Amino acid sequence: MAPKVVPARGMRDILPADKARREHALRVIREVYRSFGFDEVETPALEDLSRLESGQGGENEKMLFKVLRRGLDPDEALKPAEAADLGLRFDLTVPLSRYVASNAAALRTPAKLLQIGPVWRAERPQKGRYRQFVQCDIDVVGEPGSIAEVELVTATHTALTRLGLSGTTLRINDRQVLAGLLTGCGFAEADHGSVLITVDKADKVGLDGVMEELRGKGFDTAHVAALEAALGRLLTITDLSAPDALAAALPGAVPAQAVQRLGEIGAALAVSAPELPVVFDVSLVRGMGYYTGPIFEMALEGSGSSIAGGGRYDNMVGRFTGRDLPACGFSIGFERIADHVALDEDRSRSCALVHPADAPAGELVRKQREMAAQGYRVALVKQAKRMQPLLDKLVEEGYGSVVRARVGEDGAVAFTEPSPLSGSAG
Amino acid sequence: MAPKVVPARGMRDILPADKARREHALRVIREVYRSFGFDEVETPALEDLSRLESGQGGENEKMLFKVLRRGLDPDEALKPAEAADLGLRFDLTVPLSRYVASNAAALRTPAKLLQIGPVWRAERPQKGRYRQFVQCDIDVVGEPGSIAEVELVTATHTALTRLGLSGTTLRINDRQVLAGLLTGCGFAEADHGSVLITVDKADKVGLDGVMEELRGKGFDTAHVAALEAALGRLLTITDLSAPDALAAALPGAVPAQAVQRLGEIGAALAVSAPELPVVFDVSLVRGMGYYTGPIFEMALEGSGSSIAGGGRYDNMVGRFTGRDLPACGFSIGFERIADHVALDEDRSRSCALVHPADAPAGELVRKQREMAAQGYRVALVKQAKRMQPLLDKLVEEGYGSVVRARVGEDGAVAFTEPSPLSGSAG
Repeated sequence: MAPKVVPARGMRDILPADKARREHALRVIREVYRSFGFDEVETPALEDLSRLESGQGGENEKMLFKVLRRGLDPDEALKPAEAADLGLRFDLTVPLSRYVASNAAALRTPAKLLQIGPVWRAERPQKGRYRQFVQCDIDVVGEPGSIAEVELVTATHTALTRLGLSGTTLRINDRQVLAGLLTGCGFAEADHGSVLITVDKADKVGLDGVMEELRGKGFDTAHVAALEAALGRLLTITDLSAPDALAAALPGAVPAQAVQRLGEIGAALAVSAPELPVVFDVSLVRGMGYYTGPIFEMALEGSGSSIAGGGRYDNMVGRFTGRDLPACGFSIGFERIADHVALDEDRSRSCALVHPADAPAGELVRKQREMAAQGYRVALVKQAKRMQPLLDKLVEEGYGSVVRARVGEDGAVAFTEPSPLSGSAG
Repeated sequence: MAPKVVPARGMRDILPADKARREHALRVIREVYRSFGFDEVETPALEDLSRLESGQGGENEKMLFKVLRRGLDPDEALKPAEAADLGLRFDLTVPLSRYVASNAAALRTPAKLLQIGPVWRAERPQKGRYRQFVQCDIDVVGEPGSIAEVELVTATHTALTRLGLSGTTLRINDRQVLAGLLTGCGFAEADHGSVLITVDKADKVGLDGVMEELRGKGFDTAHVAALEAALGRLLTITDLSAPDALAAALPGAVPAQAVQRLGEIGAALAVSAPELPVVFDVSLVRGMGYYTGPIFEMALEGSGSSIAGGGRYDNMVGRFTGRDLPACGFSIGFERIADHVALDEDRSRSCALVHPADAPAGELVRKQREMAAQGYRVALVKQAKRMQPLLDKLVEEGYGSVVRARVGEDGAVAFTEPSPLSGSAG
């Protein structure tokens, strides 16, 4: 027996039923974002390694798949850093920033861009996590005002609803609020990153767990106690429709403009997406270091797991362009939603065309083509002694009708009308 | 000024207008193949290097992008062969064969599979050729009969026609016919590969050029003369509806069954795709070494350039599965057709929503969402002093209507009905 043939470690094949659902979901996402004026672009999977290793990618940079230079001497030994010049992208944000810099002349301001594609991360393989997965990002580049956030959220909410994923909630916070809060509690700015990494765990370890970890990290206990009191107070405030109450609960170090902007976004979303619950959540941090303003996550009610997230990152695109550009993005966790999307097809429009083995191919394929033009999906199925297992498989694959071909004595082929196909179980 | 930021060498960004046309084309191709009962699957971009370097990929194996092992010691120098363990696929045929072996238990027989995705080849960069490009393959695995070829060709012809690419011609030949022809002319079997590489150039260098190159390669002049006579005779035969005439013109070494099969395919296509001209072309070779039976190419009339090609390769999938499996595939040259596909959208359904800078974001995005639900594409456009260049750009991007927002004295927003948008040139 031949050895077992499997995909490369940590990678997977996507089989027809999953692939059909995924393509359906991508099509809906594309249509909705396009209807909101987002333009889809595509960047190559490979980028120059120097760009991918610029330090903006955080932990993801450690999970790079690096590509060997071409034309190397097979006998010459090289250290890894000398041997590689390209890498597979680990997200779509670095390529987006590079795209904006490369194609500045072709862009409107603000530019509203959609990018969908695979990314690669050499994570330790584990169940349900793969080393190649699809990301789906929209970005507004060049718009400093909060209308960018309102469009991103409303369009994404609309897309998810079209996919049957209603019942989502938006949690929102602001990095400037978080920074002001930490400053107000006495933390030095240089420590903010480390403190936020711990606060980010609040939904997993609770407020007590956060404080324990902060004390364990050696932060001043007075600062930790001040933060505990502030978070305890602020976690009870979720209503953005009264930004004054929020402002009053925040330390003076929080810029008033940041709180006002959160209120604006909340008020606008109440008009543009009134059925979407929007809540302020002071414990929302979002991992990446590059966010500079509002940050937000959308979760499925019930499961609580985040299915989309994003925020404002005003200084990142400028790293490539040499001039600062305000930017704001939202990314759908495509792999998380793909399993929740149903492909609601009419089974009777998927038809097995069962034919004798000796029926003329031209007549069979002509009939298949005719039915395909009428909107059917048609599988040609050769008659055999043991048909039932094959028909069961077709039923499992969504086929719900059958047409039978018969070859007359004169050689002419006749077809029955479509009739229901049911498996032996049904 | 910052240095110019460009994609990695030989790669490109795909801008919105091109991307929209490409996605439209892929959607039509997916729909048509699905209606013919092909199931789309997806395999990862990376495969184990040993599989990609198995020798079936011919010249493409020399153009591999190889991926460095993860977790290498940064200080240890390694030879390239020791440093890499994965590679980016250079076509979809090797992954397809691997997929069939990996997922044998889930497949019907015959399996009809569609795969669409990027492939990578480190070719010398040149105008119009890129190191990442999209392939689009359908394959029938497990069907020895010529109905496989008839389905592949009919489905592909239908897809291209739906894309507006009518006026194609199918050229067809058979590797067994070519092998019998060369044997009949006296060439040793070991030389067939080399001779066919030269014959493949007939459309570029003509029959005289082919003969000159064969003599230059040192082949027996009597064999070359016999081939010249046979080709001269056979090139006049293009009609497959009279396979007896073709058989009579071929040397006895050509298996009668191969000629008969060509006749069958021609006769069936005359029924299933009567508007598609099908011609026998003895000079059609197709590059890859793995073909074992009928081979075919579809060309756009006029341009003459091939836009799809394929053939039967009965021994390849078996290399992975350990048991021989008949297989037959057809690949659309997606990059060649993408430029010919028009995105025929109603411009009036792309609408610029022009609004004062201080209009409330919620009202604007609510209106945008309403229009999107009605099938519009809506771009929010802030009023500015010099609007015309921006409006011109929108017209260029396919926007053909405009709605204007006005904020009343009471703060309420009113919108005009859509009216035609024309650029300053129009």
